Amino acid sequence: MVALDFRVRGRFVSSVVGCIVRMVVKLHGAAFAACPRRVAACLYEKNVEFELVNVDLFAGDHKKPEFLQLHPFGLVPVIQDCDLTFFESRAIIRYYAEKYAGQGTDLLGKSLEDRATIEQWLEVEAHYFNEPAFSLAFQVLYAEKLGQEPDLNVIKSSEEKLTKVLDVYEERLSKSKYLGGEFFSLADLSHLPFAHYLINDSGKGYLFHDRKHVSAWWEDISSRPSWKKVLEL
Amino acid sequence: MVALDFRVRGRFVSSVVGCIVRMVVKLHGAAFAACPRRVAACLYEKNVEFELVNVDLFAGDHKKPEFLQLHPFGLVPVIQDCDLTFFESRAIIRYYAEKYAGQGTDLLGKSLEDRATIEQWLEVEAHYFNEPAFSLAFQVLYAEKLGQEPDLNVIKSSEEKLTKVLDVYEERLSKSKYLGGEFFSLADLSHLPFAHYLINDSGKGYLFHDRKHVSAWWEDISSRPSWKKVLEL
Repeated sequence: MVALDFRVRGRFVSSVVGCIVRMVVKLHGAAFAACPRRVAACLYEKNVEFELVNVDLFAGDHKKPEFLQLHPFGLVPVIQDCDLTFFESRAIIRYYAEKYAGQGTDLLGKSLEDRATIEQWLEVEAHYFNEPAFSLAFQVLYAEKLGQEPDLNVIKSSEEKLTKVLDVYEERLSKSKYLGGEFFSLADLSHLPFAHYLINDSGKGYLFHDRKHVSAWWEDISSRPSWKKVLEL
Repeated sequence: MVALDFRVRGRFVSSVVGCIVRMVVKLHGAAFAACPRRVAACLYEKNVEFELVNVDLFAGDHKKPEFLQLHPFGLVPVIQDCDLTFFESRAIIRYYAEKYAGQGTDLLGKSLEDRATIEQWLEVEAHYFNEPAFSLAFQVLYAEKLGQEPDLNVIKSSEEKLTKVLDVYEERLSKSKYLGGEFFSLADLSHLPFAHYLINDSGKGYLFHDRKHVSAWWEDISSRPSWKKVLEL
């Protein structure tokens, strides 16, 4: 960090000098974890160089005091970018989509009304899709590894919830190519990590493939170079 | 709706003419319901005139086919504003905070970094605070009215989760006046509906009042004229 104090347009810019020297964004997380993957996909779409700082989740490193200084709830991801340190994957992807609006893929649309539609479907992902997708993937993929009996009631109810959500998506995607409109956006990107878990790791691909438009949408968004790079991390 | 077709800067503006004639934003919801209240608080802060279109939730009007045309998941609120119809309260408050950035209270800060911090705490509200607050308020306020026995395990676990969340808030608010920084923002506003249920209707005020900075924060944000107007709706 270069410690220089001078003014540009009346503001001290020592931190900016530090940024220029450090350059690379630090993404604290784990390559297999869903929420860091969401952020990585966004950074690849926006051509933002970053370094993945591995947090050993199985060793509980995210619950240790030094990590709790970065994230008081002890979860991943956390971003360190110059003087800005913050967490929550969907806050992070909004920040980079807006900060680099003119660089890489446009992920927020051209107008406030575009963004409103994108934000609506991003909230649908966060509040309708995410919970049953997480619960289902956790029960199928991790419960036994953690010494728990998979909860069949949770599996059943999660699948029922996802069925309803994906029926709404099928209707939406019969009318527009992507959730947020005719272009790929944060609303689609945010689905990649858990949809991947369900389709490729949990044997639940039929939930997607049995729906014509959802299936085509998934083939499209999961074929993007950004997502392929995430899976190679 | 005035049907005129002409061009401004190359774009048809018949819908804009319709907007000028209609003017008032329609907020579909119910005056007592948390998520419509979140939107109403934002609209008051931004001095945006609106009309509350009552949806009779006890009669199940939100599950009827005509309402499902507006909101495929059958929930409130829904906004109709000129040609834009959309749902999800946190998408709606982001839209109005940005659309009327220079009008009423600034709810998104002055820089992208301000907004990143606000978005982080808005996500904390949505993903850490909201679920236990909803579950606790539902069990205490509505379970018996709906003929269910209140689930004591849910009450206990929700209170435990909220205790941890509010401990993090106490630490944060010991360092900054509001969650998003030194100014009131969407991050604070978004807490008003469920915190009000817990404190004023569910007998859980001690969760807030036992924490010095959380208590002062609540007294501050719940005293805002916008929130008082919401409660008078």
